[in-house]
Amino acid sequence: MTLAPPKKVVLAYSGGLDTSIILKWLQTEYRAEVVTFTADLGQGEEVEPARRKAELLGIKPENIFIEDVREEFVRDYVFPMFRANTVYEGLYLLGTSIARPLIAKKQIEIARRVGADAVCHGATGKGNDQVRFELGYYALEPDIRVIAPWREWEFGSREALIRFAEDHQIPISKDKRGESPFSIDANLLHSSSEGKVLEDPAVEAPEYVHQRTIAPEDAPDKATIIEIGFEAGDPVSIDGEILSPAALLTRLNQLGHDNGIGRLDLVENRFVGMKSRGVYETPGGTILLAAHRGIESITLDRGAMHLKDEIMPRYASLIYNGFWFSPEREMLQALIDKSQEHVSGKVRVKLYKGNTTVIGRESPLALYDQDLVTFEEGSGSYDQRDAAGFIKLNALRLRIAAKRAQRG
Amino acid sequence: MTLAPPKKVVLAYSGGLDTSIILKWLQTEYRAEVVTFTADLGQGEEVEPARRKAELLGIKPENIFIEDVREEFVRDYVFPMFRANTVYEGLYLLGTSIARPLIAKKQIEIARRVGADAVCHGATGKGNDQVRFELGYYALEPDIRVIAPWREWEFGSREALIRFAEDHQIPISKDKRGESPFSIDANLLHSSSEGKVLEDPAVEAPEYVHQRTIAPEDAPDKATIIEIGFEAGDPVSIDGEILSPAALLTRLNQLGHDNGIGRLDLVENRFVGMKSRGVYETPGGTILLAAHRGIESITLDRGAMHLKDEIMPRYASLIYNGFWFSPEREMLQALIDKSQEHVSGKVRVKLYKGNTTVIGRESPLALYDQDLVTFEEGSGSYDQRDAAGFIKLNALRLRIAAKRAQRG
Amino acid sequence: MTLAPPKKVVLAYSGGLDTSIILKWLQTEYRAEVVTFTADLGQGEEVEPARRKAELLGIKPENIFIEDVREEFVRDYVFPMFRANTVYEGLYLLGTSIARPLIAKKQIEIARRVGADAVCHGATGKGNDQVRFELGYYALEPDIRVIAPWREWEFGSREALIRFAEDHQIPISKDKRGESPFSIDANLLHSSSEGKVLEDPAVEAPEYVHQRTIAPEDAPDKATIIEIGFEAGDPVSIDGEILSPAALLTRLNQLGHDNGIGRLDLVENRFVGMKSRGVYETPGGTILLAAHRGIESITLDRGAMHLKDEIMPRYASLIYNGFWFSPEREMLQALIDKSQEHVSGKVRVKLYKGNTTVIGRESPLALYDQDLVTFEEGSGSYDQRDAAGFIKLNALRLRIAAKRAQRG
Amino acid sequence: MTLAPPKKVVLAYSGGLDTSIILKWLQTEYRAEVVTFTADLGQGEEVEPARRKAELLGIKPENIFIEDVREEFVRDYVFPMFRANTVYEGLYLLGTSIARPLIAKKQIEIARRVGADAVCHGATGKGNDQVRFELGYYALEPDIRVIAPWREWEFGSREALIRFAEDHQIPISKDKRGESPFSIDANLLHSSSEGKVLEDPAVEAPEYVHQRTIAPEDAPDKATIIEIGFEAGDPVSIDGEILSPAALLTRLNQLGHDNGIGRLDLVENRFVGMKSRGVYETPGGTILLAAHRGIESITLDRGAMHLKDEIMPRYASLIYNGFWFSPEREMLQALIDKSQEHVSGKVRVKLYKGNTTVIGRESPLALYDQDLVTFEEGSGSYDQRDAAGFIKLNALRLRIAAKRAQRG
Repeated sequence: MTLAPPKKVVLAYSGGLDTSIILKWLQTEYRAEVVTFTADLGQGEEVEPARRKAELLGIKPENIFIEDVREEFVRDYVFPMFRANTVYEGLYLLGTSIARPLIAKKQIEIARRVGADAVCHGATGKGNDQVRFELGYYALEPDIRVIAPWREWEFGSREALIRFAEDHQIPISKDKRGESPFSIDANLLHSSSEGKVLEDPAVEAPEYVHQRTIAPEDAPDKATIIEIGFEAGDPVSIDGEILSPAALLTRLNQLGHDNGIGRLDLVENRFVGMKSRGVYETPGGTILLAAHRGIESITLDRGAMHLKDEIMPRYASLIYNGFWFSPEREMLQALIDKSQEHVSGKVRVKLYKGNTTVIGRESPLALYDQDLVTFEEGSGSYDQRDAAGFIKLNALRLRIAAKRAQRG
Repeated sequence: MTLAPPKKVVLAYSGGLDTSIILKWLQTEYRAEVVTFTADLGQGEEVEPARRKAELLGIKPENIFIEDVREEFVRDYVFPMFRANTVYEGLYLLGTSIARPLIAKKQIEIARRVGADAVCHGATGKGNDQVRFELGYYALEPDIRVIAPWREWEFGSREALIRFAEDHQIPISKDKRGESPFSIDANLLHSSSEGKVLEDPAVEAPEYVHQRTIAPEDAPDKATIIEIGFEAGDPVSIDGEILSPAALLTRLNQLGHDNGIGRLDLVENRFVGMKSRGVYETPGGTILLAAHRGIESITLDRGAMHLKDEIMPRYASLIYNGFWFSPEREMLQALIDKSQEHVSGKVRVKLYKGNTTVIGRESPLALYDQDLVTFEEGSGSYDQRDAAGFIKLNALRLRIAAKRAQRG
Repeated sequence: MTLAPPKKVVLAYSGGLDTSIILKWLQTEYRAEVVTFTADLGQGEEVEPARRKAELLGIKPENIFIEDVREEFVRDYVFPMFRANTVYEGLYLLGTSIARPLIAKKQIEIARRVGADAVCHGATGKGNDQVRFELGYYALEPDIRVIAPWREWEFGSREALIRFAEDHQIPISKDKRGESPFSIDANLLHSSSEGKVLEDPAVEAPEYVHQRTIAPEDAPDKATIIEIGFEAGDPVSIDGEILSPAALLTRLNQLGHDNGIGRLDLVENRFVGMKSRGVYETPGGTILLAAHRGIESITLDRGAMHLKDEIMPRYASLIYNGFWFSPEREMLQALIDKSQEHVSGKVRVKLYKGNTTVIGRESPLALYDQDLVTFEEGSGSYDQRDAAGFIKLNALRLRIAAKRAQRG
Repeated sequence: MTLAPPKKVVLAYSGGLDTSIILKWLQTEYRAEVVTFTADLGQGEEVEPARRKAELLGIKPENIFIEDVREEFVRDYVFPMFRANTVYEGLYLLGTSIARPLIAKKQIEIARRVGADAVCHGATGKGNDQVRFELGYYALEPDIRVIAPWREWEFGSREALIRFAEDHQIPISKDKRGESPFSIDANLLHSSSEGKVLEDPAVEAPEYVHQRTIAPEDAPDKATIIEIGFEAGDPVSIDGEILSPAALLTRLNQLGHDNGIGRLDLVENRFVGMKSRGVYETPGGTILLAAHRGIESITLDRGAMHLKDEIMPRYASLIYNGFWFSPEREMLQALIDKSQEHVSGKVRVKLYKGNTTVIGRESPLALYDQDLVTFEEGSGSYDQRDAAGFIKLNALRLRIAAKRAQRG
């Protein structure tokens, strides 16, 4: 079935060359009215220039949407994810994955507001981001038309794209003419680098791909010690100073950057089926993960912690694969959030040349009980003789099976 | 029901003061013939002195068993565990837990050989080790009599113990008279420190509790780069030199030690129900974990990896809780081992002041396919247009639910 | 450490011979003031006679507590459990397990009200119920003193118990003098029979052990068809008649009883380590389980359903083992409850000689979409060509692995 | 990229109208040489007529492959699946799903033998079977060309198909001219019916859709009791008679058929994203599932059983979704198979008007120990006083948390 062309399209627009080409392509290919959405997710670039570029490309002022979503991003996406100590494939802190649902949600909201019938993103046809954007769109607006130019258009090479840009008076900065040696994604949680010079996983990533951190070797010879305060599973203060979610993560990023913390060189499994290699930098997130485990270690019950740990890999895969707005992610979130009620207190963390070390934790809600654990005779709720019965009954089924083996 | 006293007891004997007191107590309290078993697990102490001490305490030569079990320990316990990238509560590499089943097994084997009717260990009544020893005993010899002196005897204080030692001519080195400021366990995989000066989890662990590593601050300013070779999930070589399991782990321990790698300060949940704080040093294991994840990242299928990651926390808990010789641990091991067939190749790891960084991996069995992932047009088995259908069908159930929400 | 005797004890009192003996034993052994709690859980016996018996045994009127807890039992325990389609070891509907936490909670509440320092139950030392009662007590009142007479007293035989009863003027009905051929537990959800004549699992359970159901062979030759209405995961009506939780379950029990539905003969694994054989009858619950799966089948998203199914066995074990009042059970409940928001509609069930068959389901919130599934050309959101891409990307990792196998 | 047409295609050929049309379409559309593969999977139809039909449609004798795969099907697919007590979404015994990988494997083997470059199946574009076939093909032969006519051709209606058949002299039996009121799949494990008259899930399935069972109402008034023997998890005998896998399942099917056993009316979630309604009949499988749980109940350790139960839903989804030939299915199989070593013995099952009831089980390898469980004083390895310590330590963490709540 051939679809009628879209009339009005909300484009996730960065202001860069690629999404500018997409913008123009939507206008020329579909003759569609384009609405741009540019979010400040903490990627480290000004967003206002995107307004001027959009205007230059003929977008009406009322069709240009620019929003600072940093607080919403950290509060409603990053922090809930960190409550689960989420890592994908043992290591990846999901910095790119967690930003996509928010962008998708904003595009859909704008589409409703301006009466657009389509949305468009600039993710390629080989990656995970196309999936994350589009699952987000569909989960929120099931009949929306989705345009994925990289899967549709006929440009066969970088040169063809540049030619198209030239033909349509899209400004091209000099360093974008040639192919960049790797591609970048960035937001307040992390930056990622992949492609080209990173494609051979046997070869060490060059220092220059790093965006957010100095090398451990270049970090100070003296450790930095900070204290992070938590309330109900989320960080709320650094060294006693109460900070908003985005301000707190920004501060941690700076601390991580300065101490060479949060670099990861990873070969991961994409949802679309192939392995790829990325270099990730998550300075603040790396500190936060260690600190969150630290505060949980004294405030979270064993049964709660082990259950969380067992469901975490699935929760991570859901986010990685783009299922943020799915019933099962929301069910897991309900489980996780339920566990965090008493996860409050303070954690002292030492930052030193790439290392993040928890060196102290305390909480008025601690389940740690020095009286119980002491080698000295404690005050009392533990009777060592109970251990005999505990072991005997835990052993019972093993003994029965061993007897079978002996008679077998 | 009151049991008849044991006649012949196989004691896990270190040669130290505490197990010497136990030895004597078994002789005096139960009038039992004592058989000592002393294992070289790589704890870093000579085991032969234990022979002389045992003889001194009246043990007949044929009742003294001393064995170097380092290769068996690493090959049959440590490496299988590392195939699963096992960590307990997100962080702990299970260095103590994994050694207990082997000791239990050896004691049972000796008990059968010498016709002993009981076994005995020196673990306290508050910890996990009593459980691990005893579950091991019972799983292998269901009707064995188990003696756990720390849960049975009446000594009310350290002084009373020392007095008993003096009364029975047990030699006491000067530094053992007073209470030690913390307690230690060690084997080829790790050393642990806990108790006393470490009991307040808010207070940083003092530098002097560390046994196996220098501080990152004291490590060289220049990184060390090594290449670890793997075959079917297990490490087999360092920098091209084929090494036996124990020799390889010993080498990694030295490398880790020298670079300040593998320290962990943790509050964990014991199986017996309370939280405790420990300082662990696992220099070689920490390097091995990173390297194993590195080789898996290019050789292991996504479905296999994610399944492994999901069952790992349970596998870790089984080991931590002492269920090594249980049907479910063996079932999980079968699953894990099945996955490791193609996990072969080389990983380059950079060691620098506490950091272990995988910087390169290669394998003739790699599933990583540069042609597939490249931003350049690849050779072929991936067609970007397939992604459209993939996303559409993954989105279908979300769209149906979204439509319900809209009409609801 | 020897504890001071308890002063005031809240006893879970059925009014029967065994708990009457316990009552008297508490008075004579501990000289304790006894407070009785008798609950109407729908066990099918009058509870008021328990008042007279308690008075007869010298309990002060203000120390006698009798409460009809049927609605609370079904609403707050049974229905939440059925939201998860809970079965233990594939088959058991947990009728005994789910009642224990409620009794424990009531005892603790009474203990607080009357200032009692201890609680007491009549469960034996080999079963699960002791664990369930006591974990409930401790989770709600950590310092409560727990008395478990069957683990403490010295009566060596049934005869000794009867003698004690005679010595203390406890009335003994004739049929209780000898040993009963099996033991029973009952409440509004189920009845269970175990022990004695049931101990050999090779021998068929005799018809006379059944309490709640007629045999399928004795049920009518004509099927009964009913329609059960659900709201947010819980049943609310039968054949259009709105019923309270307890009234609804009572009605289902009658329907099940009459149609020979809900018998189970099971060998199960107790938490304390051995296998035991029980005969369970859960007439209404068996119908409810089938109907709940029926309404979920059209209203619950696939991701939600599969996640529920995967965590269910663990949820069931937690209830079976007595961990109702644990953080992890509450976390799982949060996950389950989150999924049930739209599980509303009607299910038609056919009851016939032991069979419960769902024959129809409908809901205004259905996710079932006839247009999508029809072999006819549907209206549209499914394009068959999407399946090609879906399959191709799902196959990609398998193909890459197959290529490795070919070159390997 | 446009592919060159396939030269030689191995078609899964039933001999029926639909696959005959596909055969002809491959010849006319692609001018391909067609190789037919017809399997006797126990679908209950003769396979030899397929040879004559293929010859009639111009297939060379050496290109016609007919094979009786019933033993292989039951031994290598059905029985391994039943070792896990596998059900999809709580109820479905996966009768269709489990047959697809075998057919795919045979097609690939033939393709290799005859040098074919493509394979073809007759599954539609909306169902699961296309996925199962194609994932099987790709997992075994990654570069095979797959042809899925239902997704490719342009026939817009049943009439157009019939016209094509007439135009190409394909014989059409009278009852195939119109649309059939539902569609059927069948093999030795089950038959399924779906579509058309079954599309409204609110309406009871008509009696005439059932293929393999009589209605419970029509079954004998007297129960049939059988004894099934198991060895290492698989059934090997009925009433003492050793039977091959296929013969045993055939016998159970007859017993199930005669007693109205194994009907299921289900709304399920397809992998491709929509819900569908099917009526399944699995007479022998339903008996087998109950009997297998029965023998496990006395021979399988609790830890093993619970682990199996927890991973089962995922294992079921893998089979349902077509991932039989995936690393993770093989890993789970290794885990499952490891558990079945001692699952041997006899189970007595009562079959009566739709009910399958386990009434007795016995095994020389039983873990059930009457001495342990008896209310009488047993011989010994269980000491009731051990339960006190067991409960105390299991309660410890709950008590600590309760104390926090009290002070909080």
